[in-house]
Amino acid sequence: MQEFAEPFRHGWRQTAQVREVLYDGQSAFQHVQVFDTVPFGRMLVLDDACQTSVRDEYIYHEMLTHVPMMAHPAPRRVLIIGGGDGGALRRVLEYPVDKATMVEIDGDVVDVSRKLLPEIAGSAFDDPRTELLIGDGVAYLRDTTEHFDVILVDSTDPVGPAVDLFGETFYQHARRALGDNGIIVTQSGSPLVMLEELQAAEALMRRVFPIVKTYTCSIPLYPGVLWSFTAASTRLDPTQVEPRNIAGRLLANGQPTGWYTPAIHAAAFALPNFLAAALETQASYDPSALPLPLY
Amino acid sequence: MQEFAEPFRHGWRQTAQVREVLYDGQSAFQHVQVFDTVPFGRMLVLDDACQTSVRDEYIYHEMLTHVPMMAHPAPRRVLIIGGGDGGALRRVLEYPVDKATMVEIDGDVVDVSRKLLPEIAGSAFDDPRTELLIGDGVAYLRDTTEHFDVILVDSTDPVGPAVDLFGETFYQHARRALGDNGIIVTQSGSPLVMLEELQAAEALMRRVFPIVKTYTCSIPLYPGVLWSFTAASTRLDPTQVEPRNIAGRLLANGQPTGWYTPAIHAAAFALPNFLAAALETQASYDPSALPLPLY
Repeated sequence: MQEFAEPFRHGWRQTAQVREVLYDGQSAFQHVQVFDTVPFGRMLVLDDACQTSVRDEYIYHEMLTHVPMMAHPAPRRVLIIGGGDGGALRRVLEYPVDKATMVEIDGDVVDVSRKLLPEIAGSAFDDPRTELLIGDGVAYLRDTTEHFDVILVDSTDPVGPAVDLFGETFYQHARRALGDNGIIVTQSGSPLVMLEELQAAEALMRRVFPIVKTYTCSIPLYPGVLWSFTAASTRLDPTQVEPRNIAGRLLANGQPTGWYTPAIHAAAFALPNFLAAALETQASYDPSALPLPLY
Repeated sequence: MQEFAEPFRHGWRQTAQVREVLYDGQSAFQHVQVFDTVPFGRMLVLDDACQTSVRDEYIYHEMLTHVPMMAHPAPRRVLIIGGGDGGALRRVLEYPVDKATMVEIDGDVVDVSRKLLPEIAGSAFDDPRTELLIGDGVAYLRDTTEHFDVILVDSTDPVGPAVDLFGETFYQHARRALGDNGIIVTQSGSPLVMLEELQAAEALMRRVFPIVKTYTCSIPLYPGVLWSFTAASTRLDPTQVEPRNIAGRLLANGQPTGWYTPAIHAAAFALPNFLAAALETQASYDPSALPLPLY
């Protein structure tokens, strides 16, 4: 049987058995592939990096979306940068939002996802509250005069087309568009195999936002499995949300979750000691003081 | 470069690059190997299943040991079944215990670990409080008249020499040796790639103990990375431990942890929704009702 694996990171990698290559093309921005795999079902790969799969997409999209949406008392306007598969958009639309704007740089990703991974977005692209823009999210955020309650950065890792999403200028524009009561979340890589990238992203966000909180979950599709997101805000602290409030809003949304629960919301911010140490002390962190995985 | 990978599970596996094979032998019970790997440093493999590594052993051993030790107000007598590498023993001895008895079925595992993975046990095997017995843990527990406050089952998965550790009779003997105020913990596999085994282990423990709680952490060495442990007791509820109490006892132990913290203790019991559902409903669980990873 065919196999797909991302390159080794620190001498370690995961491999998925592949039943069939469903799509293989070059967009204006990146190499786009869809495989039908044994463990994950159909999965999307961009520039040889696994992005999402029909079987485990719910973990990533629930944790990316519900955590900041619940941290805001009543989000009405949401901006998604990237997210061409529609999985984050679908979760945002479970809430009583007025409008969800998605700015995806690569139209091919949207087209391929709608055709080959339709269950990830469900009917989200057809929702009248959805505004889909194919374009550069960095430029959009720089130029927009709109206000957003929540911004989700649902991007590839900080290489290739996504590199400017991980710059200080981007976060300054995000802060302006969010105002004091908004919140931004970005996926921030694996603490196990990309710790330096996570440390760099967190440090950058701290230069712009007074509240910065990293949280984790397990995403089997991604290298290292243990995955991180980092939330930032001027005033909203995502760790200070009442479980009963979350439970009530999930019930009102009316959609089952596979990973996210009120208890998971709180627990996700409890970082392993090595990670708490690595993020708190940044440059002055001494790796010899505590054990570290894979380094 | 050489590579080592466990067999595919549900079409998915992890691979580690291998610098050198340090040991390869057949014991009376199993195939014993030690590899020097790029991601994990030296690692122990039994019957082709990764057991522990010098780089990430702290995660498994801290979560196996500290959770039940903290759940007991003052553990004095501890039994470890398996655990030939000495990593659990070392953490147990950080506490003011009177005696730690270890019953490991395979003396070769102890010998190989002491020689090639000495930093995992540290000086634990030389501690005067250590009683090391090479023998069958199931028979030991059946025949012993001793009382234990904490029993740790630090074994391979329920195949090969460990199979009897996952039987109802074993847990009945454990309950007798623990009395009302003791607690037992067993590693219970990956919720992502061994969910049926976890469900079976939990169901078995529920037939013997009124309190049964599963908790998780991420162990890069193990298939699926997300890993589970299940704790069982007649009266001790490991979810009801004061964080301040944990912090004080960790301070008294005087040893740094890499993964475990008071917040991690509580957070580890917050299960992803699919897993909570799978464990609560057991046989009546309908996999189509909620998304499930890799199934």
